[in-house]
Amino acid sequence: AWCQAAAQKLSGGIGSKLCGMLGKERGWGWRRRGNLLPATDGDTKTMTFLQEVVDILLAYIVESFDRETKVIDFHYPNELLQMNNWELQDEPATLDDILISCRATLKYAIKTAHPRYFNQLSTGLDMVGLAADWLTSTANTNMFTYEVAPVFVLLEYVTLKKMREIIGWPDGRGDGIFSPGGAISNMYAMLLARFKMFPEVKEKGMSSVPRLVAFTSEHSHFSIKKGAAALGIGTESVICIKADQSILVALVQGFVPFFVSATAGTTVYGAFDPLIAISDICKKYNIWMHVDGAWGGSLLMSRRHRWKLDGVERANSVTWNPHKMMSVPLQCSALLVREEGLMQNCNQMHACYLFQQDKHYDLSYDTGDKALQCGRHVDIFKLWLMWRAKGTIGFEAQIDKCLELSEYLYNKIKDREGYEMVFDGKPQHTNVCFWYLPPGIRYMEDKEERKKHLHKVAPVIKARMMEYGTTMVSYQPQGDKVNFFRMVISNPAATFEDIDFLIEEIERLGQDL
Amino acid sequence: AWCQAAAQKLSGGIGSKLCGMLGKERGWGWRRRGNLLPATDGDTKTMTFLQEVVDILLAYIVESFDRETKVIDFHYPNELLQMNNWELQDEPATLDDILISCRATLKYAIKTAHPRYFNQLSTGLDMVGLAADWLTSTANTNMFTYEVAPVFVLLEYVTLKKMREIIGWPDGRGDGIFSPGGAISNMYAMLLARFKMFPEVKEKGMSSVPRLVAFTSEHSHFSIKKGAAALGIGTESVICIKADQSILVALVQGFVPFFVSATAGTTVYGAFDPLIAISDICKKYNIWMHVDGAWGGSLLMSRRHRWKLDGVERANSVTWNPHKMMSVPLQCSALLVREEGLMQNCNQMHACYLFQQDKHYDLSYDTGDKALQCGRHVDIFKLWLMWRAKGTIGFEAQIDKCLELSEYLYNKIKDREGYEMVFDGKPQHTNVCFWYLPPGIRYMEDKEERKKHLHKVAPVIKARMMEYGTTMVSYQPQGDKVNFFRMVISNPAATFEDIDFLIEEIERLGQDL
Repeated sequence: AWCQAAAQKLSGGIGSKLCGMLGKERGWGWRRRGNLLPATDGDTKTMTFLQEVVDILLAYIVESFDRETKVIDFHYPNELLQMNNWELQDEPATLDDILISCRATLKYAIKTAHPRYFNQLSTGLDMVGLAADWLTSTANTNMFTYEVAPVFVLLEYVTLKKMREIIGWPDGRGDGIFSPGGAISNMYAMLLARFKMFPEVKEKGMSSVPRLVAFTSEHSHFSIKKGAAALGIGTESVICIKADQSILVALVQGFVPFFVSATAGTTVYGAFDPLIAISDICKKYNIWMHVDGAWGGSLLMSRRHRWKLDGVERANSVTWNPHKMMSVPLQCSALLVREEGLMQNCNQMHACYLFQQDKHYDLSYDTGDKALQCGRHVDIFKLWLMWRAKGTIGFEAQIDKCLELSEYLYNKIKDREGYEMVFDGKPQHTNVCFWYLPPGIRYMEDKEERKKHLHKVAPVIKARMMEYGTTMVSYQPQGDKVNFFRMVISNPAATFEDIDFLIEEIERLGQDL
Repeated sequence: AWCQAAAQKLSGGIGSKLCGMLGKERGWGWRRRGNLLPATDGDTKTMTFLQEVVDILLAYIVESFDRETKVIDFHYPNELLQMNNWELQDEPATLDDILISCRATLKYAIKTAHPRYFNQLSTGLDMVGLAADWLTSTANTNMFTYEVAPVFVLLEYVTLKKMREIIGWPDGRGDGIFSPGGAISNMYAMLLARFKMFPEVKEKGMSSVPRLVAFTSEHSHFSIKKGAAALGIGTESVICIKADQSILVALVQGFVPFFVSATAGTTVYGAFDPLIAISDICKKYNIWMHVDGAWGGSLLMSRRHRWKLDGVERANSVTWNPHKMMSVPLQCSALLVREEGLMQNCNQMHACYLFQQDKHYDLSYDTGDKALQCGRHVDIFKLWLMWRAKGTIGFEAQIDKCLELSEYLYNKIKDREGYEMVFDGKPQHTNVCFWYLPPGIRYMEDKEERKKHLHKVAPVIKARMMEYGTTMVSYQPQGDKVNFFRMVISNPAATFEDIDFLIEEIERLGQDL
């Protein structure tokens, strides 16, 4: 009955025919032959094979959300290399071997959807987003022209416009692109800022422009420096700013400040720079204002939290990664740009084999020449379909819930014995940074000795977490601060109980240290 | 029976339980509620929903390979905007609406798997590659650390090594990365070449180095210039080379040649630069030699055709896109680098929240700091699984077949009435560039008038192809050459009959022009 029901849904009667054959074919014969499409009569074998893979994936998904399952079945690299035959051969494998490889790959994968996976800014797995990504893979096309990706190009247009409206630019006007991650989005912004001030740089390079200097917040993401290195600006020309005094110093020294990257949600502390104050400075000195909201940009979707980004509408460009706080499957990062046409002017090279000027449709939809990439993966559909399924209010509820969980964690540990907070006050985002002090070092008199011990606590607890596979959370040192836990919550599957579990687990695994 | 068979395959008995519930739940109730995972008891609703999506995808796949189906159901952008409600709303949609959106998206998608889709260098859809991409989406993780992508990091290591062995570097030693497309791979190469010669550029920028100049082949890909613009080198410092005379001129003028990009398989003509001769020049002047084999690199897999890349083993870096000639789903592009450690030195920024130095495993597997990106999509699994399924000999057979088809096309039209070839001699790759002259202009005396007419022929035929939806092939002008068809074959589904069909279709659609 199930088979028939499924078959009826398949269009044009193909399904019905296939499902009948599927029953007969589900023995072992198809595996030995392995004649998938485009082989003649490969239809049924293909359906059977793909359905087997889907069954494996569905089981993995259900398992991933089960708290009784491990987050990770950890093995050291040299062990893992031995645990399966990963080598590539001259001869083909059987489809059976392919299914075995799929199972092995998932067995040792990290369950990023698991309610107790907190390790990165991107966590969780949205079912509609996943379905959309499966569809994207099946459509297997390229964003460079309307010709080969008509729907996806339109959806990118619709979605970027909506995001610009939410930023607060009039009528959602402006420009933008989905890029392969926040680091590239930030690099785009720096590239545009330089081109805006010195368009001749495109043809003549950096030798045609004065010594440029960029400013960013103290705890900004490392991609600002990576971008500066790549673009030939140099990391020494990126200055960590605390006040507009730095800009004056640079001017006096004969540098040309061209770019300020304010951070909306720093990677470690989740802090928000004061965007209005920064925009005043940028206006005064006529500097491009970029907001790196890769992590914090999604708070724009929340009526309760969007005030943290007040002033974002004054920015020239904004990075906003829906693959972080909005739980869109990786990768999904947008760069939004206030000025129309600048991206095209900055990056276009007029490749005549792609962007023919005598095509029969409106060429403004051939957006490929805006990009640094030539081929560009379709990252839009998963965001668009999730937005459709949740509505703006669904994203808002999801984001608000994560912030509520982090406030719960903060309140739970801020006065708890054995805990110290890394920064003062309530977190602005879902980042809660803290030290756990095992009983043995809690009352150590020698501050230096205590610090030395404390530095080793988080790595050991983390290693044990991974070996037990019960949960995952990140740790790190920062400046003169020894290793602390950086807890972040972007996982829609997490609950108050999972926060309780994390704390219990840290104490269980760390009490003897 | 089908249901039970599938259920037995699901691990841990989950499948069996779910499949039972699935039968009961397959009414309409689940759609109204729409409570997918991570909702409590969301398992069955999730399985049902995802299975419905998979059914839609399976039907689309089978249709895509059916020659009776259109390649494209074309609509102009303003029409397509009207044909569905694509707008994003505040309120959530039902899961029914989500399924409708999936169907609508596929209805207007280009069937890139269709045996008669020849429009780009990336065509076709491999079933194992697709399965691998579905698994990748489900695993939803990030390549930056072994910690969160243990298997994928190992598979990248294994596969890059194998590709370097095929290039011919001793024991497959060297470095590399999978990047978001050939343009970015080429940009990486230029970045590494600059850093190798002037490591201080990372900190001090272009003001610390002399005027650099890069050389590339006349018909090289536009990404070389895009890269030069982005990196602050400037497009005017990219010189299209014909002989080593250009390098001498540059030296005399006081420029520092730092980078030569030879092309193995140009985008339009599919031509291969003479790599041995170029490597001699690079050696003489101590210049970084890059081979852009985005399109032609895959010929290294073919014993019959790899001589076209003789000398590639002398390169410092090679771009090779398995998503083109090897039909791996988009995106899958590798940059291979001969020198070990250089990528790390060039791009690392030591982010302490990701690359903690006191982790409990071998840190050489945390490859993220080599990249310009922070988060990086998993592009490796589809290539690895396809390689596994086909073996090296399977890729070889697939590539050889495409080259055979293109030779068939060349032989068919080179002396046929109404055709003129754009370049002399047999194509080196699968690119066959030709004009079709409709009878009306075939014997025009006035050469200029004939040229003017001919320029309009290909765009009209292409527009008609898209409106009928029967096939898709690219056209373009090049220099003083008016619009011609650029036929490329990378689609494993294509046959001799499809080539015959293309020619018949061009004649059918163009005879009245």
